[in-house]
Amino acid sequence: ILPTVLVHGGAGHIDADKVECVKLGVKQAAQRGYKAMLETGSALNAVEQAVMVLEADIHFNAGYGSVLTENGNVEMDASIMDGSRLEGGCVTMARSIMHPISLARCVMEKTNYRFLAGDGAMRLAKEEGFEILPKNALVTEASQKLLKVFKISNTDTHFNVVPGTVGAVAIDAGGNVAAATSTGGLTGKLSGRVGDSPILGAGTYADNEAGAVSATGHGESIMRYNLSSRVLALVRHKNYSIQQAVEEVLQNMTAHFKQTGGLIAIDHRGQLGIYFTTELMSWAYQQGKELHCGVEFGEDEVEIVDDDT
Amino acid sequence: ILPTVLVHGGAGHIDADKVECVKLGVKQAAQRGYKAMLETGSALNAVEQAVMVLEADIHFNAGYGSVLTENGNVEMDASIMDGSRLEGGCVTMARSIMHPISLARCVMEKTNYRFLAGDGAMRLAKEEGFEILPKNALVTEASQKLLKVFKISNTDTHFNVVPGTVGAVAIDAGGNVAAATSTGGLTGKLSGRVGDSPILGAGTYADNEAGAVSATGHGESIMRYNLSSRVLALVRHKNYSIQQAVEEVLQNMTAHFKQTGGLIAIDHRGQLGIYFTTELMSWAYQQGKELHCGVEFGEDEVEIVDDDT
Repeated sequence: ILPTVLVHGGAGHIDADKVECVKLGVKQAAQRGYKAMLETGSALNAVEQAVMVLEADIHFNAGYGSVLTENGNVEMDASIMDGSRLEGGCVTMARSIMHPISLARCVMEKTNYRFLAGDGAMRLAKEEGFEILPKNALVTEASQKLLKVFKISNTDTHFNVVPGTVGAVAIDAGGNVAAATSTGGLTGKLSGRVGDSPILGAGTYADNEAGAVSATGHGESIMRYNLSSRVLALVRHKNYSIQQAVEEVLQNMTAHFKQTGGLIAIDHRGQLGIYFTTELMSWAYQQGKELHCGVEFGEDEVEIVDDDT
Repeated sequence: ILPTVLVHGGAGHIDADKVECVKLGVKQAAQRGYKAMLETGSALNAVEQAVMVLEADIHFNAGYGSVLTENGNVEMDASIMDGSRLEGGCVTMARSIMHPISLARCVMEKTNYRFLAGDGAMRLAKEEGFEILPKNALVTEASQKLLKVFKISNTDTHFNVVPGTVGAVAIDAGGNVAAATSTGGLTGKLSGRVGDSPILGAGTYADNEAGAVSATGHGESIMRYNLSSRVLALVRHKNYSIQQAVEEVLQNMTAHFKQTGGLIAIDHRGQLGIYFTTELMSWAYQQGKELHCGVEFGEDEVEIVDDDT
């Protein structure tokens, strides 16, 4: 199996003048994750490191750059899963930290729990030495503008804008898979709204016997449809290719709920699945020296990267 | 299809002197749910009403009688799902209300969200006219005693005691299924711990094309294993009977994680699945005039009930 790290930067619309920044972001994330895998041999480290790059990048809706609740605050959801042990960690209502994905990993590795919300999650962050940022440190001009526009237009379609949820899936040479997803959620959401990203089986799942999945899109629909689980069930029980599985399940979800989304996945054989029913989805993967990237349907830019990058 | 309402009152140990009270509770819940289905024709109403009976019963770990966080407070998780529309509602960190299951239904029916935590859930409760109880109104002597014992013994096995999580599944004559689960969680838990009960695909799932499931047991394992989804995948893709499916999946989970649990399920043909890897699990169902109930492995008490009960 060829070690591979595949990331997404959210599905939806991307303003034309932002496309290059978004592509650069997902490529850097895939490369950073790939490097972490080569250095540590761990798919889990790879997805965490890849997502951390996107959390720190203002162009994505996770960590710094997260969209705002109706009160103008940042409340983040994240989950991570290690397919070799079926281990997972999840957080919701995380605030004032740059890397919710690392806090999700701490929930998994440092507690007897697997999902912590709000103050419970923040207590763990303090105990584990996470830097607690000043209030509003994660708030950007762009996210404030989005909230303003949302409040004026007051539509129900607030998810379908940049910046996007981020995620990563990876497989190592031994066939161990991992998945991670991180998001600021919906612009203008009610404080306490939990999306699909921290839900194992909805936004994130990883199981060495089937594969790893990270989802993006309309969270309430992804949660109701149990999107990641349905993808892996087709691989597990019906011998679908992972690309067939992500296409069929996402098409069915979109037809059923009239809501769109995107999926990235790697199956237990190392095959990739990339699909979206939105206008665009940014994604990138590194496999060996090849770095692939795309935003539009059917797009697949390839470049050759040095090991030193 | 024969309309059926099947409930559980948690899996684990039940003190000998409590067995009769627990049996009475699950039987009353099954009857109340069945009556609601006959009156309204709705499997969704049936599971909500059945769970409300158990939330109001001191002998179960849900609503009144919920176990306590490490700080001595009640923080409740619940979810409900309507298999005919793949609609669901979920709450976590709910407090000071008798019926979290009804709040979960409100999330589903009255908001654009499907999962609300803490203050966001409580704001909806107030807006929807839920009675907000005085602080400690849900705290019982029994739950305080359990917390005391937990703090002294400080073991990792705090879930495996009475009272138990509650849940219900139902099917109506038209083949519509629904599921609901409600719990106070773990004695001595950290505030903010989210269990499997509010997670669609873990503690609860319902889909007319496959069936309805409610789980109980070690929440972290059920969440990691995506227990309800795995059961329904076997029905959907492998043509398992629902009893085969609940047995195989729960045995696999227990072997994999060395953690136990229980499941109740109804498939889309109206067949029932009841299984547990714990010592005991209380369950009951009504189908026509037959009221079945059991606690021990293999137990199946039947009585004939009047329509007037």
